[in-house]
Amino acid sequence: MISRVSTICASLLIAASGASAQWPSIFTTKAEAAQVRRGAGAYPLLGRSLEEARAIVRQALARPIDVPQPGEAGGYAHERHKQNYREMYLAGLLYTITGEQRYARFVRDVLEKYAVLYPTLGAHPLSKNQAPGKLFHQSLNEANWLVHTAVAYDCVYEALQPAERRRFETTVLRPMADWLSVTQAKEFDRIHNHGTWATASVGMLGYVLRDTSYVNRALYGTKRDGTGGFLRQLDLLFSPDGYYMEGPYYIRYALMPFFYFAEAIHRRQPSVGIYAYRDSILKKALYSAVQTAFPNGVFPPINDASRTMAIDAPEVVLALDLAYQRYGADANLLGAAAIQNRVVLNAAGLAVARDMAARRSPPAMSWRSIEFSDGHDGKRGGLGILRMGEGRGSTMLLMKYGVHGEGHGHFDKLHFVLFDGGREVVPDYGFSRWINIEPKFGGRYLPENDSYAMQTVAHNTVVVDQTTQNRADFDAAEAMWGQRHFFEADSVHVKAMSARAPGYYEGVDMQRTMLLVRDARLPYPVAIDLYRLTSDASHTYDYPIHFRGQLITTNVSYTANAARREPLGTAHGYQHIWREAAGTTDRPVQLTWLDGNRYYTTTTSAAPATEVIFGRTGANDSSFNLIVEPLMLIRRRATDHLFASVIEPHGYFSEAEERSEQARPRIRDIRVLSSATAATVAEVTGDNDLRWTIMVNNGPASTTARHRVTAGGATYEWTGNFAVRGVQRATSDAR
Amino acid sequence: MISRVSTICASLLIAASGASAQWPSIFTTKAEAAQVRRGAGAYPLLGRSLEEARAIVRQALARPIDVPQPGEAGGYAHERHKQNYREMYLAGLLYTITGEQRYARFVRDVLEKYAVLYPTLGAHPLSKNQAPGKLFHQSLNEANWLVHTAVAYDCVYEALQPAERRRFETTVLRPMADWLSVTQAKEFDRIHNHGTWATASVGMLGYVLRDTSYVNRALYGTKRDGTGGFLRQLDLLFSPDGYYMEGPYYIRYALMPFFYFAEAIHRRQPSVGIYAYRDSILKKALYSAVQTAFPNGVFPPINDASRTMAIDAPEVVLALDLAYQRYGADANLLGAAAIQNRVVLNAAGLAVARDMAARRSPPAMSWRSIEFSDGHDGKRGGLGILRMGEGRGSTMLLMKYGVHGEGHGHFDKLHFVLFDGGREVVPDYGFSRWINIEPKFGGRYLPENDSYAMQTVAHNTVVVDQTTQNRADFDAAEAMWGQRHFFEADSVHVKAMSARAPGYYEGVDMQRTMLLVRDARLPYPVAIDLYRLTSDASHTYDYPIHFRGQLITTNVSYTANAARREPLGTAHGYQHIWREAAGTTDRPVQLTWLDGNRYYTTTTSAAPATEVIFGRTGANDSSFNLIVEPLMLIRRRATDHLFASVIEPHGYFSEAEERSEQARPRIRDIRVLSSATAATVAEVTGDNDLRWTIMVNNGPASTTARHRVTAGGATYEWTGNFAVRGVQRATSDAR
Repeated sequence: MISRVSTICASLLIAASGASAQWPSIFTTKAEAAQVRRGAGAYPLLGRSLEEARAIVRQALARPIDVPQPGEAGGYAHERHKQNYREMYLAGLLYTITGEQRYARFVRDVLEKYAVLYPTLGAHPLSKNQAPGKLFHQSLNEANWLVHTAVAYDCVYEALQPAERRRFETTVLRPMADWLSVTQAKEFDRIHNHGTWATASVGMLGYVLRDTSYVNRALYGTKRDGTGGFLRQLDLLFSPDGYYMEGPYYIRYALMPFFYFAEAIHRRQPSVGIYAYRDSILKKALYSAVQTAFPNGVFPPINDASRTMAIDAPEVVLALDLAYQRYGADANLLGAAAIQNRVVLNAAGLAVARDMAARRSPPAMSWRSIEFSDGHDGKRGGLGILRMGEGRGSTMLLMKYGVHGEGHGHFDKLHFVLFDGGREVVPDYGFSRWINIEPKFGGRYLPENDSYAMQTVAHNTVVVDQTTQNRADFDAAEAMWGQRHFFEADSVHVKAMSARAPGYYEGVDMQRTMLLVRDARLPYPVAIDLYRLTSDASHTYDYPIHFRGQLITTNVSYTANAARREPLGTAHGYQHIWREAAGTTDRPVQLTWLDGNRYYTTTTSAAPATEVIFGRTGANDSSFNLIVEPLMLIRRRATDHLFASVIEPHGYFSEAEERSEQARPRIRDIRVLSSATAATVAEVTGDNDLRWTIMVNNGPASTTARHRVTAGGATYEWTGNFAVRGVQRATSDAR
Repeated sequence: MISRVSTICASLLIAASGASAQWPSIFTTKAEAAQVRRGAGAYPLLGRSLEEARAIVRQALARPIDVPQPGEAGGYAHERHKQNYREMYLAGLLYTITGEQRYARFVRDVLEKYAVLYPTLGAHPLSKNQAPGKLFHQSLNEANWLVHTAVAYDCVYEALQPAERRRFETTVLRPMADWLSVTQAKEFDRIHNHGTWATASVGMLGYVLRDTSYVNRALYGTKRDGTGGFLRQLDLLFSPDGYYMEGPYYIRYALMPFFYFAEAIHRRQPSVGIYAYRDSILKKALYSAVQTAFPNGVFPPINDASRTMAIDAPEVVLALDLAYQRYGADANLLGAAAIQNRVVLNAAGLAVARDMAARRSPPAMSWRSIEFSDGHDGKRGGLGILRMGEGRGSTMLLMKYGVHGEGHGHFDKLHFVLFDGGREVVPDYGFSRWINIEPKFGGRYLPENDSYAMQTVAHNTVVVDQTTQNRADFDAAEAMWGQRHFFEADSVHVKAMSARAPGYYEGVDMQRTMLLVRDARLPYPVAIDLYRLTSDASHTYDYPIHFRGQLITTNVSYTANAARREPLGTAHGYQHIWREAAGTTDRPVQLTWLDGNRYYTTTTSAAPATEVIFGRTGANDSSFNLIVEPLMLIRRRATDHLFASVIEPHGYFSEAEERSEQARPRIRDIRVLSSATAATVAEVTGDNDLRWTIMVNNGPASTTARHRVTAGGATYEWTGNFAVRGVQRATSDAR
């Protein structure tokens, strides 16, 4: 590590001194800007993006400039300072593109006001546990400001008088960079997205000012030894596959400083080879982000995450355009860009818009199934994503078996999420936070984030003895991770993944195997779930399925808590779930609900005295913080148990058209034929003589080992980690 | 009435005998079809509509024709017969447009199968209280079949052999027309949309077969005296304004037979002057339908109605295109057609598509405020709609003060609905029915339609003593109607409507005055509600506001039923509402919620010991039939009381952008200064020195009378039914 850093250090000095004296140079150049100007007329996506920028700045020019005294998070002053840097950024780019002086004057005039205010400020008084900024309550926001302002300043640099530059640099820009990299050195060196923002902002300013001291600090940390700094972040924040340990919601945010600074390094200091660094880790980072997205572009809200953050976020637009330009054109990235419907205003955005315009219609975003390893060494479990179908209508099944994910992690090992028919139909609750809504606890994380959203029962994974995994102990959870068993997605008709989570509950081993199966007798791919629990002692196993929309029907005879309702428990998230109804059955359990234009039915294998509970979030929620949604919970008391389930999308409903088709499932049953240490065999039966035999190797993973199981007088033989017999292939199947 | 009918009868005989011998003639002609063919290439809307039709029929041609034995409502056979007539209809039109024989052959082949099946059928065994059909459980569906098949038959008539025609007419078409108009004579003569469908189907077939006996029966009823029949329907089913007594969801359905038959009459028997009949009542009917729609095109779900039925329903597409052609081009109709995004495949659709193509961008649908009188005589109260703004973003406030609306009516006099920001933010529950979803009670009306959806508390109108209006007695409700007081919507800044409902509760008089106010200090128009109750005795008045989305905050100190929840009552709908929290206050009541991208705050005037209850639907709902949604209920025990409220849309929220602005209201208070028999005076105060004085005349309506009220030492004087002082006008206000 250190030797690599030294080599790079040496080359840096040469590159920096030999660099062109022209501005702008860190994100665009005069020549590029001229191409953008011409391209805007020819390529609609670029034209629209430019027009949007003009509209925003037009409004800014029409208003008096306001650089207010710092205020609380989410308040007027906070938002105003955010808006100011966004407007400076766009005005700077518009100046290079159009040459219109008013844009440069605007950036200058805003900076003049900061030049007056900033020297009067000390540390923000309202920072709580965060490292404070001066304009903002946390230094993170200050770094956001400086990243954008560095680009703006680069763009208008040559339009400013030397005295103006001197004033801005001595009153605002250098003091802020010093605050971020010297006063807040610890935050600066932190291997965390806060550190990424800080290093990027200081490094970008360093390039604009041609100050190698800032640049070196940014690249190699305050000690210049590579124990902190931007390159170290690239080493540690991603798994070798580019998966970001905190999950897709957070990589979204981190992509911006990673790519802004990388682009500046690439332009100012090409010898670093930043885009090739760590086997092109930035390419993998961008791809891993967009490849985890649901087919509609929304990021799965795993861990503490918003339910709606999507690939059209400005950070992803930036990273995608740069990746498209720097790593090569890719039709799937264009498909993602079509969802984004916006490009950045430099040569990268131009390239995307040009290639989009060359197509008759925008390509669909259709990623293949993929598994990401987790942990910086790639050896700490992973995240599996099975996909079938094309574009927005495709099916996506995600299983989570990696690391806990630091402070934003949830106790949700072996949790799954199913996306189908354009919707997250078996969802993740996401965070419990009304982000930035001041009356909701200042827009911060709510107490229910801890008491519900983070708990195991808020997820689609088994809860043992009504207790959260690791007994909700953060340190215990951080110290372990899931174990991948196998991930095989090459077949068109059957794709499978399997993982284990031992030790999350004392004395209980868990293994989950999930499959996507496409059969010509069914209109949509079907998910199969084999959740195996083994223990020497007897436990209560709760198997939850969260859903949205309306409960349509169930085959379970239940008693409804129709006139009086109480919570399902007192702790570990159960206190937030109303018990709506419950019943006991020895038969397979079926539940059908309606979500959007499609019906969904789960069919779970029969077991004696299975309790089925219907619940709804919202109990013990005096402040109306929770989102009210239904769930079903299948409860079994056992030592070893296998929950075998099928989730089947079916039919069609449109209230507006008053049309309903096939509201009943075609799958009738799933039976466990054998569940043992070596292997699991299950059988799914349904209409039209549907009969699938599902065989899974529970022993050491191997694609070549032969297996033989005898159960109920029959013998089942297969080779490899799994096999499914009896699937009827469609005549015209793609991938 | 009778004399007019006789005159028309005489002219009919002449017109019919002199009509052209060519087919098709009731909906299109060969010449028109040729124009449609040419226009499809030039006008995208027509081209797309034609392509959609082709795609549907392409699938039909690829499948074996199936004409199954009749089955239950919503089942396969039922849906198959529906699909068969839709496909015949489209194939017939495609034949005239393209001349391709395969389309005519398809219609013939389908009819051949019906010619075999139909003679074997008796009355459908599964009809319940309905008049039975033979193919379908109710004759209504049989009439749907015949309307469409009449058009199809007209289109392919000349392509059929005389023997084929004879066979189809003697085995299916005439027997069905006879079934509908002779066997089911009572249904045929009924002044109801079922009667409209029956008469239209028989009349249209009559024109195709050149059989004046069918035509006369259809126009004048089975007795040929005008006591039944199509013209009588036009006389009685609409108010003079064209408002349909059952409400917009039902007129949507009835528009199809009204317009299909009218178009056939116009073409075959122009002397009837059908489009001019009753002062162009069909024009008014179409306009009243689209003018009651929300700005997004969805019909307000008043009475038993779907929440999502919209103007893009095929019935409205047909009626709108014909109205556009027959009554003259109208930019607002084009705006509605843009939402429909589809046209019919004759000259009317061609005209709409042509005029749409001539515009750079589709016009917005921006109706003005309008009041509809109710009852066939127009003297039975009405429906008031205040609007501000343009297109989809406009605000719409609807108040309901007409007749009960027959069997589908709800006990909801003085109920209001508010639409803002593209959403129904203070909603109507609509019907309790999962329409056509077989596992949900066969897709029929659910018991909760009676026990909840129809009850007063399910609406946004005051409930007295926790009892439904008219004690939920249908006959009592049918015997009375609301009384309009005034409706004045000419001002740009303040629009108002007022109505009374005496007698709906014994000994209690109710008057509701609602206003829309636009003030330059507020970003969106604001609704003001003055709900006045007077009685000699003391009553409990419950003022409900239903909402969707998330409760954000309230200024009421409440105790939450956080760990145990019970229903709010035992009857009149209260048994279906969970009591979530409640508090008592002497201060003004404020509640803020989030719906979509906007916040909404209701501010209600202070009164001593006001109880505030937060509830949620879903109690006593063992079958999970209800939709779970929140409401607030403000409860006062009093003799006379005025609930004065402001509903203020404010701010902006996007979770995906993580942006929240102005989550707190600007309106601070509304105070009642005087509430008396003669007049009401209230004052609204808010930020930026906002202070409105609202003065309303409660005595006999007059736009010229002068009023003078002394209250709290001040004197308030105004002329006319209402005045609002203190509204700050924006510099650039339209309408």
